[in-house]
Amino acid sequence: MFKIKLLAFLFIFSTFYVFAQDDNGVMSMSEFRFPKQRHIIQIPGFDGYQTLKGDFHMHTVFSDGQVWPTIRVQEAWQEGLDVMAISDHIEYTPHSKDVVVDYNRTYEIGKGMAAENNIILIKGNEITRNTPPGHFNAIFIGDSKDYIADRDNAKDKDAVMKAADQDAFIFWNHPGWKVSSIDGSYEWIDLVDELFKEKVLGGIEVFNGFGFHKKALDWCVDNDLTVMGSTDNHNVIAYNYDFEGGAHRTMTLLFAKDRTAESVREALEEGRTVAWSTKYIAGKEEWVSKLFYASVEIGPSFHSKEGKEKSTKFYEIKNNSDLYFEMELKTGKGTKNITLYPQSSQVLTAPEGQDKLTYEVVTAFVRSDKNLVVDIPLK
Amino acid sequence: MFKIKLLAFLFIFSTFYVFAQDDNGVMSMSEFRFPKQRHIIQIPGFDGYQTLKGDFHMHTVFSDGQVWPTIRVQEAWQEGLDVMAISDHIEYTPHSKDVVVDYNRTYEIGKGMAAENNIILIKGNEITRNTPPGHFNAIFIGDSKDYIADRDNAKDKDAVMKAADQDAFIFWNHPGWKVSSIDGSYEWIDLVDELFKEKVLGGIEVFNGFGFHKKALDWCVDNDLTVMGSTDNHNVIAYNYDFEGGAHRTMTLLFAKDRTAESVREALEEGRTVAWSTKYIAGKEEWVSKLFYASVEIGPSFHSKEGKEKSTKFYEIKNNSDLYFEMELKTGKGTKNITLYPQSSQVLTAPEGQDKLTYEVVTAFVRSDKNLVVDIPLK
Amino acid sequence: MFKIKLLAFLFIFSTFYVFAQDDNGVMSMSEFRFPKQRHIIQIPGFDGYQTLKGDFHMHTVFSDGQVWPTIRVQEAWQEGLDVMAISDHIEYTPHSKDVVVDYNRTYEIGKGMAAENNIILIKGNEITRNTPPGHFNAIFIGDSKDYIADRDNAKDKDAVMKAADQDAFIFWNHPGWKVSSIDGSYEWIDLVDELFKEKVLGGIEVFNGFGFHKKALDWCVDNDLTVMGSTDNHNVIAYNYDFEGGAHRTMTLLFAKDRTAESVREALEEGRTVAWSTKYIAGKEEWVSKLFYASVEIGPSFHSKEGKEKSTKFYEIKNNSDLYFEMELKTGKGTKNITLYPQSSQVLTAPEGQDKLTYEVVTAFVRSDKNLVVDIPLK
Amino acid sequence: MFKIKLLAFLFIFSTFYVFAQDDNGVMSMSEFRFPKQRHIIQIPGFDGYQTLKGDFHMHTVFSDGQVWPTIRVQEAWQEGLDVMAISDHIEYTPHSKDVVVDYNRTYEIGKGMAAENNIILIKGNEITRNTPPGHFNAIFIGDSKDYIADRDNAKDKDAVMKAADQDAFIFWNHPGWKVSSIDGSYEWIDLVDELFKEKVLGGIEVFNGFGFHKKALDWCVDNDLTVMGSTDNHNVIAYNYDFEGGAHRTMTLLFAKDRTAESVREALEEGRTVAWSTKYIAGKEEWVSKLFYASVEIGPSFHSKEGKEKSTKFYEIKNNSDLYFEMELKTGKGTKNITLYPQSSQVLTAPEGQDKLTYEVVTAFVRSDKNLVVDIPLK
Repeated sequence: MFKIKLLAFLFIFSTFYVFAQDDNGVMSMSEFRFPKQRHIIQIPGFDGYQTLKGDFHMHTVFSDGQVWPTIRVQEAWQEGLDVMAISDHIEYTPHSKDVVVDYNRTYEIGKGMAAENNIILIKGNEITRNTPPGHFNAIFIGDSKDYIADRDNAKDKDAVMKAADQDAFIFWNHPGWKVSSIDGSYEWIDLVDELFKEKVLGGIEVFNGFGFHKKALDWCVDNDLTVMGSTDNHNVIAYNYDFEGGAHRTMTLLFAKDRTAESVREALEEGRTVAWSTKYIAGKEEWVSKLFYASVEIGPSFHSKEGKEKSTKFYEIKNNSDLYFEMELKTGKGTKNITLYPQSSQVLTAPEGQDKLTYEVVTAFVRSDKNLVVDIPLK
Repeated sequence: MFKIKLLAFLFIFSTFYVFAQDDNGVMSMSEFRFPKQRHIIQIPGFDGYQTLKGDFHMHTVFSDGQVWPTIRVQEAWQEGLDVMAISDHIEYTPHSKDVVVDYNRTYEIGKGMAAENNIILIKGNEITRNTPPGHFNAIFIGDSKDYIADRDNAKDKDAVMKAADQDAFIFWNHPGWKVSSIDGSYEWIDLVDELFKEKVLGGIEVFNGFGFHKKALDWCVDNDLTVMGSTDNHNVIAYNYDFEGGAHRTMTLLFAKDRTAESVREALEEGRTVAWSTKYIAGKEEWVSKLFYASVEIGPSFHSKEGKEKSTKFYEIKNNSDLYFEMELKTGKGTKNITLYPQSSQVLTAPEGQDKLTYEVVTAFVRSDKNLVVDIPLK
Repeated sequence: MFKIKLLAFLFIFSTFYVFAQDDNGVMSMSEFRFPKQRHIIQIPGFDGYQTLKGDFHMHTVFSDGQVWPTIRVQEAWQEGLDVMAISDHIEYTPHSKDVVVDYNRTYEIGKGMAAENNIILIKGNEITRNTPPGHFNAIFIGDSKDYIADRDNAKDKDAVMKAADQDAFIFWNHPGWKVSSIDGSYEWIDLVDELFKEKVLGGIEVFNGFGFHKKALDWCVDNDLTVMGSTDNHNVIAYNYDFEGGAHRTMTLLFAKDRTAESVREALEEGRTVAWSTKYIAGKEEWVSKLFYASVEIGPSFHSKEGKEKSTKFYEIKNNSDLYFEMELKTGKGTKNITLYPQSSQVLTAPEGQDKLTYEVVTAFVRSDKNLVVDIPLK
Repeated sequence: MFKIKLLAFLFIFSTFYVFAQDDNGVMSMSEFRFPKQRHIIQIPGFDGYQTLKGDFHMHTVFSDGQVWPTIRVQEAWQEGLDVMAISDHIEYTPHSKDVVVDYNRTYEIGKGMAAENNIILIKGNEITRNTPPGHFNAIFIGDSKDYIADRDNAKDKDAVMKAADQDAFIFWNHPGWKVSSIDGSYEWIDLVDELFKEKVLGGIEVFNGFGFHKKALDWCVDNDLTVMGSTDNHNVIAYNYDFEGGAHRTMTLLFAKDRTAESVREALEEGRTVAWSTKYIAGKEEWVSKLFYASVEIGPSFHSKEGKEKSTKFYEIKNNSDLYFEMELKTGKGTKNITLYPQSSQVLTAPEGQDKLTYEVVTAFVRSDKNLVVDIPLK
């Protein structure tokens, strides 16, 4: 985020510079290219995994989105993604009067730019059934034409099974969408149950844009499905996310052996993910916990202050990542509330004689009604 | 710009709020609509004219741009424009394999959204001849199909004359582009001379994006052509302009009797414009001068300080607009350099006994080598 | 706010420029002065009054603040105040080992800089009694030494009466402070009642920093006391307010005949004020209402769309001020929620055949439990 | 910088939250403390050293500064310093009418806050002789009273030797200041030559605020003196540096064995420093070079594109630090200009068959007229 800002500075500067050196009223427009850079989102890996940043749900003018596929790749590059999928709607193509419906083209248009910018582009589509049943993203797919052929006649399950036939990774999108506004609740519907039992369903979106589908987190935990976070963007990403103000796009963090499509697939299959939206993370306890401990470190006591009975010890607790953690003390005596902003540290104080404090990380969810609990060791 | 920022605050807030009140894990996604607002760019009118903000040169996926026409209207609304034209290239349509070439569609897709958001949408196209000769924007055009028909066979002049036949307003785009990079200079070419003599040419782009085509300013002044400023954007506007950092898009300021398409046309025909890019304005002296005096006011002396011989008088000089002025003292004794930031004021000091100071406004151009000179009255 | 940002751009630029032109390794440090500017906060006046921006409660190193008086004046200038008072604590001077206690000095140090920058500096002090009773700001005072003399022996009422003897304007600070944390409630205490009955009390702080003392608003309304808003800052103002993010400091808006100390006093005496903090304003209904109508305008219908029964009319509603308004529809049919960001507009839609819509402005308080209600006329 | 921004978000949020939950009009002001955090500036260490961030030159109200010493510690904490010295002028105390001159107090007031926030506070003073000769900072000093005693009678050299007697580390401040504005040049003056020969002088400020004293860099390189960078701030730091826009304060980067005062002293004595201001770094070639290679990494080729003769290889070059590097190609064929923004990466392309490219880092100075040259290996 820092860079995006600095970039603005330098850009303005170079503009003025060119104005200044313009002697004879001639100016080559090619001088004015915008200096692009890839923002590095700092999130450490652990256990031999690196943390990849992925977004597998977004749209272009080829379905109902408002941008060309290259914009999606450009955004991914600037906003720090490692891996992405464009997932235009199969069954919903309102621009078809002007744009020829062919989703292989979406991938083809984007792949050159992705390859040259070190972005892993996964081929995808959104199977878009009247809700309920709902929408399902299929990624790592084959020929998109297979989906379009009889899209209007296919039964819901058959439509999804086409993706299974192509050995796609399939996840259920925003389960609470639309259903909630009809009757105020959303459920584990029959179609999903069937797909789950036939091992066709791989994951569920827990975060979709700025929406937290809480039940989806429990379903993932209870049924060993992969926790996903996506933007589902149709408009320009920067229209919805205030990057200069420090925002990040909603995404899936993947704990992968390598920065390859194969390792991404493996992490998805094995459920090694955490979803990240605004200040919140959500996922299975194992991964949320490992992510926290990889990001946060506490140093030895750097100062001691005499008190009435006991002396108070001072510690610096550091968040080396771009994540955000709010912590509330559960057990022990010490600083009650700690807010760990991205790439920053705080001072924690505690009366001497304790070997740890236990905190609840209220911005980290491991179930719909349960937050991560962590031990902070004191030395 | 202020608002765009605040908006981000509130948006984040409302997101958190919904997270907080989410009881049963159900969340209607429709709650998350982004609060749109139209930013008001503060630039006063004068002499019975209001100052309209226009950009008549930008592209969409229908030629070589990367966004859908609705994005262009959305940007115009948010970024404070009153009037706009989408001007896709007639002769250059690299997306034609995927997007059906029909520029009437560009206008049709945009016009509903424009009408509902109080944006005046002018129909336009860019006649794109191998450079040199160059590119010409035609706005207030009729049926776009007329241009596309024999675009590949038409002679340069015939291509432009189609627009004249439709009674379009025609301006020459970025005259220094490409030519400069070939031989280091750009000239008043024969085609332009013919168009000018036949009264077909209405104006020239002096500012195109971040480029200042200085010779174009002299040509406009000497030949009574209209001074234009445009973004010529292909990508997302916010990708090139740092709005949160206080930037505005390059534009044409029009001094119009009313906020209507007719008044816009009249202002263009009569040359009542100033171009605005980064911290610079450029135009004919009459309009640049009136714009300065409408924007800047100086109050009576508010303080006096005894000096060795004479006392020093203190004045507050205010810039009520979103323009930016850097001024250097030319005649008289007083503050040598004044920088008037948008919507801000400065203190000016001067020894008593003077009734005015004369400044050169180095950020306001009235010829390629001449800046506006202004008198600041002292009371 | 816009300017503060732009300023940063230019500053960086000028730095680079000097770097660039530095030929022989010699550089005059005097070139590097920061370009100061006074930010204009846009809030219109009405009824012949102009809206002045005042903050009458802040501290320096002379009591328990952390900055020199000149910093307070510099902040006022940059952050758009017209009038200010430094109000160091009489009875609390923790820096007295290092800083000589003499509040006449605070005023003397600040007044030259204030005079040269067109800031109205009012002499003040905070009478700081053990709470409860509480703290009282006295502004428009005479010699500060009168207060310090027997500050440790004086009875609470006598301490305040010294200010009355000097014909000061006196207001009760943050009535909920400290008291609330002791017993969970705060009351109209005897000392205040006596001061009120003897017509010594002029107003109460309704907003203190980011705190909204709701009962104070009712007391002001019921007893015809003046509504005040203050920062009460001890630290650097920019440490507490995110100006680049669009924030303004907490302040009192005064509706004054002229921009003079006398008119400020008159406005305070007659209660012509509204307090402003974050996105909220609070005050007596008359002034909150006039402020709203002076800031917001609605144009005639600019578009009409056919509907099933009636057509829908489109209107643009503009907020010409730097205030912020959230509005909820109470009576009539039309857009239910409108958020008017500073200097921006929104589109309002309504079925035809209505001559007005009635909204509640939920960010404008006229009592602790009552928001401003406004009529928006439709044409 | 990211955090400072995010912090603003959360702060605004928490404010609103408290507004919302306020039931009975009672609000404890103690809830409104600003959430402080220490920003981590990312600059890697190397060769067993960690990179500490230091600023050893700044002022408070105790000499001619405008803030209390605690503000200086607060700024250091927020703005990511590890080590700092307050260096009030010995011979210039314009506030002495109001503030008792005793620089031991400056240190005493700051040290508690520094200790509790893990800031290494070094005791210092600025020996301020009429220029020329000039100003000298003495840090790691003993009793400040020694300096003040006969400050007005002491000869220039004697004044500096007091610091030498206390075994202080002494550096020459802003050698070009004032002298330049008198006669356009600055020289290695006799006093400095004497101090140097007697091994009393330890370093010279190459960067002072936004000023680059180029000759000082050559003097440091030729005479093995330590390169220093300082803010020399009198006003609030955030008044001069746009932190939200991505700025950092001018500082000295120290390559230290440990994060202790002893290691800082050792790094200063041994000259293991680089000065950092705006987008520039300056220092001895050894340290500038090591800092570059510790910050920047290039991965293996991730993509290959067939060309006419040779194929082009694509590489990602990453800047893991908060530094900024502009690079121009000197030897080899490939991307000509690379701008490495903080914590970001760029794509570099080169025809196959080369094992390295050589760039000049134009933002990194190793002499007044020489930039760092680096080899970028290609695999």
